[in-house]
Amino acid sequence: MSGASFKPEQGAAGPLIPVLAVVGVGLIGGSFAAALRRAGQVGRVLGVGRNAASLARAVELGLIDEAVSAEDAAARADLVFLATPVGGLKDVLARMLPHLREATLLTDGGSTKAEVVDAARLALGARIGQFVPGHPIAGAERTGPEAADAGLYQGRCAILTPLAENTAAAVALVRDAWRACGAHVIDMDAGAHDRVLASVSHLPHLLSSAYMEQVATADDAATRLALAGSGFRDFTRIAAGSPEMWRDIFLSNRDAVLAELAAVRAVLDRAERAIDGGDGAALLALLDTAAQARRNWRKE
Amino acid sequence: MSGASFKPEQGAAGPLIPVLAVVGVGLIGGSFAAALRRAGQVGRVLGVGRNAASLARAVELGLIDEAVSAEDAAARADLVFLATPVGGLKDVLARMLPHLREATLLTDGGSTKAEVVDAARLALGARIGQFVPGHPIAGAERTGPEAADAGLYQGRCAILTPLAENTAAAVALVRDAWRACGAHVIDMDAGAHDRVLASVSHLPHLLSSAYMEQVATADDAATRLALAGSGFRDFTRIAAGSPEMWRDIFLSNRDAVLAELAAVRAVLDRAERAIDGGDGAALLALLDTAAQARRNWRKE
Repeated sequence: MSGASFKPEQGAAGPLIPVLAVVGVGLIGGSFAAALRRAGQVGRVLGVGRNAASLARAVELGLIDEAVSAEDAAARADLVFLATPVGGLKDVLARMLPHLREATLLTDGGSTKAEVVDAARLALGARIGQFVPGHPIAGAERTGPEAADAGLYQGRCAILTPLAENTAAAVALVRDAWRACGAHVIDMDAGAHDRVLASVSHLPHLLSSAYMEQVATADDAATRLALAGSGFRDFTRIAAGSPEMWRDIFLSNRDAVLAELAAVRAVLDRAERAIDGGDGAALLALLDTAAQARRNWRKE
Repeated sequence: MSGASFKPEQGAAGPLIPVLAVVGVGLIGGSFAAALRRAGQVGRVLGVGRNAASLARAVELGLIDEAVSAEDAAARADLVFLATPVGGLKDVLARMLPHLREATLLTDGGSTKAEVVDAARLALGARIGQFVPGHPIAGAERTGPEAADAGLYQGRCAILTPLAENTAAAVALVRDAWRACGAHVIDMDAGAHDRVLASVSHLPHLLSSAYMEQVATADDAATRLALAGSGFRDFTRIAAGSPEMWRDIFLSNRDAVLAELAAVRAVLDRAERAIDGGDGAALLALLDTAAQARRNWRKE
C-alpha cells in the first residue's frame, strides 16, 4: 500500500479524512464520526450496519450522510472505522476485501486486540498493512446512535497497537484522527493491551455482573434491591452494559481474563481468611492498601 | 423508663428534641444534627468525640453548640445519637450509664445491628429499653465534620431494628427524628438487617477493595491505573472508604459476610467455567440476568 495520500496535517488543505466510513454506528462509531465532524476533519461520512432503522436514525441525527453496504464503503472511503463486535469482524472484512482500494485505511475500536489482529490477518491476507488496530478507552452503558456524543473521547486515551506491516503514514493518519477527537494516543503491544484491559476493564465488569446476578436471583432480591444505596449503585453500574458485547470480550480475551480473575480470587481468599479468623490487622492492611491506591488515583 | 415526655408531634410545642447529643460528629453524626437543625427539630446540640480539633471544627461549622464529655451528654440530652465505630460503642455506653437520665433515649447509626444490640445489652443492662437501634442507608467516601450535610438523608431509607424492651413512644421519637431528616423509616429484625446489608453494602465493598488491592500491588500497576476508565472509576469508588470503619463492619458482621461471599464466589465459579470452556450461551445468560436486573433497578 501507499501511505502517500494520507497527509497528517490538518486544515487549509481540507479535512484529514475526505470520506469516512463507520461500520456500526452506535456509541463508539457514532461518537467517532461526530467528533471528527465537529473538528472539521471529515468530508462525507458513510454508515454501514445490519439494522436499517438504526442507520436511518443515524442519518436523522446527522452522524452519517448516507447508509451504504460494506462493499461500497470499502470502495469509497479513505478511512474505515470498524465499530462492530469482535465476533463479526472477520465477515465484514472478507466482504470488503475485493473492493478495498490500496489507499484505503482501516482501523477499529475493539476492546481486545490480539484476536482482532488474528481475525484481520486471516481476512485481509497481504493487505493487512492497511489495518491499524486501535481501542479508545471510553464507554458508557448507553448504546445505539442516540448515545453518540462528539465529546465522548475528549481527554480520554486511545490505544493503538500498530502492526509491523503498517506504514508510518498509516499509523500517523489514525493517530491524527484520534487526536482530532480530543483523545491522547498511546502505542502498545497487542498482548500487553489485552492483559492491562483484562485487569482494569474486563475484571470490574465480570465481578460486578457476577455479584449483580447473585443479588438478583436471591429469594429476597426485592428486599435487597429496595435497601441498596449509593455504594451498590456505583459498584453495579457497569453490570447494565450490553451482555452480548461483554460475552464477546470475555471469550475473546479468555486467557488474560482468567489469569486476572485468579489473581483477584487470591486476594479474596486472603480477605476471607482474615474475616473468618478475626484477623483485624490483616484485613486492615488489605483495605488500607486499596483505599490509599484509590484515593491517589488521578482526580476525576 | 417512661416514654411520656417524648411526644412525637412537632411544631408549636417546640422542637422534637430539646437537647440532642451526637457522639462522633463526622459524616453520619454531623449530618443527623444538621438535618434536624434545618428542620427546626432540635434546640441545643452537644457533641462528643475523642478529637478536640474535630469537635472545635464542628462548633465552627455550626453542627454542634458545644463539645461535652460522654458523661455530660448522658446527663443533659433528650436523645443521644451514637455515630461511633461499632468497636467503641460498649465503652461509650458504659461511661454514660451512671449519668443517664431515665427519660433519655439513645439510638445509633451503626452499619451492623446484631453485634451493636449485644454490646448495648451488655453495657446498659436493665436500661436497654432506652436504646433504639438504627441504621441510615446513606454514606459517602468523605469523612469528618466537613463532610456533614443537612441533605444527606433526604429520600434515603433509615432502618430501625426495635427491641422488645423499647416502648412504642421511644421508637416513635426516633422514627420522627429520621423523618424530620427526610428519610423513609423501615422496621426490620436485626438479623435480617445484617444479612441484607451484608449483601447490598458489605459485599460490594469487599469485592471492590480486594480488586483494587490486586491492581495496586501488580508489577505494572502504574500502567494499569493510567489506562483505567470510567467503569473502573465507578466500580472502585467505594474502595476509598475508611479502612478502619470497614474492618469493623466485616468483623462485626462476619457470618453474614462470609455466607454472601460464598454465594458470589459460586457465581464466579460458573462464569469462570463458561469463559474457560468457551460456553457463550451460559456466559450470556449470566450477563443478561445481571444487566436486566441492574437496568430495572430503581431510577437514580
